[in-house]
Amino acid sequence: MTRDLPARAVTAPELLAPRRADRSGATGEPDAIVIAQSTEEVQDVLRWAHARGVPVVPRGAGTGLAGGAVPVGGIVLDLSALNAIERIDPVDQIAEVQAGVVTADLDHAAAAYGLLYTPDPASAEISTIGGNIATNAGGMHCVKYGVTRDAVLGLDVVLADGRRIRTGRRTAKGVAGLDLTSLLVGSEGTLGVVIGATLRLLPRPERVATLAAMFPTVRAAADACVELTRRRVRPSLLELLDAATLGVIDRVQGGTLSHDGGALVIAQVDGPGSAAQIEAVEAAFTPAAVWVRTAGDPATAESLLAARRLALPSIEAEGKAVIEDICVPRSRLADAVVRIEGIAQDHGVGIYTFAHAGDGNLHPIITYDRESAEPPASVTAAAEEIFALALELGGTVTGEHGVGLLKREWLAREVGADVLELYRAVKQAFDPRAILNPGKGF
Amino acid sequence: MTRDLPARAVTAPELLAPRRADRSGATGEPDAIVIAQSTEEVQDVLRWAHARGVPVVPRGAGTGLAGGAVPVGGIVLDLSALNAIERIDPVDQIAEVQAGVVTADLDHAAAAYGLLYTPDPASAEISTIGGNIATNAGGMHCVKYGVTRDAVLGLDVVLADGRRIRTGRRTAKGVAGLDLTSLLVGSEGTLGVVIGATLRLLPRPERVATLAAMFPTVRAAADACVELTRRRVRPSLLELLDAATLGVIDRVQGGTLSHDGGALVIAQVDGPGSAAQIEAVEAAFTPAAVWVRTAGDPATAESLLAARRLALPSIEAEGKAVIEDICVPRSRLADAVVRIEGIAQDHGVGIYTFAHAGDGNLHPIITYDRESAEPPASVTAAAEEIFALALELGGTVTGEHGVGLLKREWLAREVGADVLELYRAVKQAFDPRAILNPGKGF
Repeated sequence: MTRDLPARAVTAPELLAPRRADRSGATGEPDAIVIAQSTEEVQDVLRWAHARGVPVVPRGAGTGLAGGAVPVGGIVLDLSALNAIERIDPVDQIAEVQAGVVTADLDHAAAAYGLLYTPDPASAEISTIGGNIATNAGGMHCVKYGVTRDAVLGLDVVLADGRRIRTGRRTAKGVAGLDLTSLLVGSEGTLGVVIGATLRLLPRPERVATLAAMFPTVRAAADACVELTRRRVRPSLLELLDAATLGVIDRVQGGTLSHDGGALVIAQVDGPGSAAQIEAVEAAFTPAAVWVRTAGDPATAESLLAARRLALPSIEAEGKAVIEDICVPRSRLADAVVRIEGIAQDHGVGIYTFAHAGDGNLHPIITYDRESAEPPASVTAAAEEIFALALELGGTVTGEHGVGLLKREWLAREVGADVLELYRAVKQAFDPRAILNPGKGF
Repeated sequence: MTRDLPARAVTAPELLAPRRADRSGATGEPDAIVIAQSTEEVQDVLRWAHARGVPVVPRGAGTGLAGGAVPVGGIVLDLSALNAIERIDPVDQIAEVQAGVVTADLDHAAAAYGLLYTPDPASAEISTIGGNIATNAGGMHCVKYGVTRDAVLGLDVVLADGRRIRTGRRTAKGVAGLDLTSLLVGSEGTLGVVIGATLRLLPRPERVATLAAMFPTVRAAADACVELTRRRVRPSLLELLDAATLGVIDRVQGGTLSHDGGALVIAQVDGPGSAAQIEAVEAAFTPAAVWVRTAGDPATAESLLAARRLALPSIEAEGKAVIEDICVPRSRLADAVVRIEGIAQDHGVGIYTFAHAGDGNLHPIITYDRESAEPPASVTAAAEEIFALALELGGTVTGEHGVGLLKREWLAREVGADVLELYRAVKQAFDPRAILNPGKGF
């Protein structure tokens, strides 16, 4: 090894290979990898890279869906070994963790104190807190509990030149200085390397009630969701599956859901008023529903949630999947689903849409043949139309997955030239040599 | 008028005088004022000022407590006439408003749709949304509903050079690009002039239950608040008044509260589970309380809240008041109150502390003689010790009022040189000619 590399960098192909990609389908080629064993090592890598102008791509578990962790040369800085839950304080209701902690591990640790770590991306069992922070990850319970940013009080960050700073606070509130914490959350590793975080925990709800309702059409389902607002119900989960998704679940899992109607809604409420709340949900849904099923116990609740959990595996059993992620105003949810059905027909592709209905956040999943190395042009064209639709309906091209490598052009269309110019000026303020995750986000 | 001034600028002393100060006690001297009648006029003022390097100090109602709106020369840009509530969407649960809308007016308008605008600073009846955004204002219900930043989805902003941008989104979620929205909230007018906002509304809780409990000591009261956490109760309001505050209320209002004990706690719960929740609060408080009183109806609830509402007026009836604002980890609340009592004794000053106990956010109010033009040295010294105490206990020098003119040195001590350097680089990115509210914040 005569190449100039940071201390403890490795180039063994068997270590590089699993760090060339994330779950977006995009791949890249790193020069080397450092699997950081200490915060000092993170600082050393950045000092080394900063001096030489070498790109550094921070990486957690590589479960991202937008290519944010895909290397474009340079050093992949793997933080997954920095996985200590340093402190859970049940009185202050905070956790202090390193970036490599697996999301579900933190929630399990919090549960031992009767507390809840609220962000729950679908990847929670494998993704890391650092990755969740980089992408401002969402999940099914955002409708009540907010996204990752809402749970981050402060950050432990290594800057591009290797200096280490703390942003934010350990207190419930605080307005001292600019909110660099929120700015760093969702910045996809382009402004600094998050090595740790102070996170808000909440009391874990003791009571959860779950309900599933079948509707004749997606519009009836979306209207029923809107009716919850009128009845002042705050669901903790509100998921919608369209007719195509019900069909693929039936085909793959052998059920008959799609015979009953055109859209399934699953709702949860939690907390001390959950019994009254689930009755209110039932009353709101019943007039338009084909059927309504409620569950008080966890096993029945899990059976009602099963269709939602089986959606993506069922789709992926039929072909390769491009997982999309747009968000529209709640009031446009039905319009979005219906228009996406039209896009699927126009391009002759399969699109299966499920949605975090309470947030207006849709995941249209476009499928293509397992034998194709790349998505065919029809898939790409359909995806582009879906992004354009999101903007037309007053929404965004990414509700919770991020921009990464894949949506940079669409970000520019969404935010415009003046805002992009501000992003670049902020980037320059944090990373004047542009070594941090270059080519991502903006 | 031969001086170079922007169009429609006025210099009449009777217009300048009320815009020289805010509620912090600090005053300054503007060269002129523009009371903006349109967004174009805001852009014109900034183009004019940017070309000449003239300071611009945005202003709402001037109710700030940290000097953020106090002019240091230049143009005061008064936004209070831009006060349209442009849209309330009951399905999407958002409001679009101009910056000059009075906070309580928005909440009243939302109430007509069964919705709630959650931030509730004590100034809500007179302060503006723009000022609330500039300071990231808090309030009594933050313990459940969060601060102003949590309610801001997107901003309409005029940049330093007069260009107008939109940040954020109108959707419930969105991760496209850097979070300039959160960065601008709390930036005290130093990065851009916020002229409008898209705000999140929530279902207005139909049921609210209120309870007041007297405790023998502040430590017993703080421990009882902690006990709520253990019982998984999420209060929507949790206020604490110390013995000195109870004493001044009794002296001024003629009551006997301070005879009963050493600390009063007022708690509210809301939502569909409020009946069970208030029972849980009562059960948590009763073992250590001198007495507990509950209220189901609004009139009784208001009578229980009366002591809290009378605290500041009572203190101000006895002298001039320096209103402080620190935040500590919840677990250190009792330590903070007891240590502040010691600081009062050491300096021979009156300090009355009430607190948003659920957030660990204390307002120690230091009083001095009405005849003094400026606070005496003993008051300033006591305030400095309170800031040092906040940092010693792992807290912040400002929980919800901001840095403004008054706490710049303490901000530097709290965040350190590296973070300050980042603030300045971000400021340079937004406002390279440093015309926006110079000398504030950092």
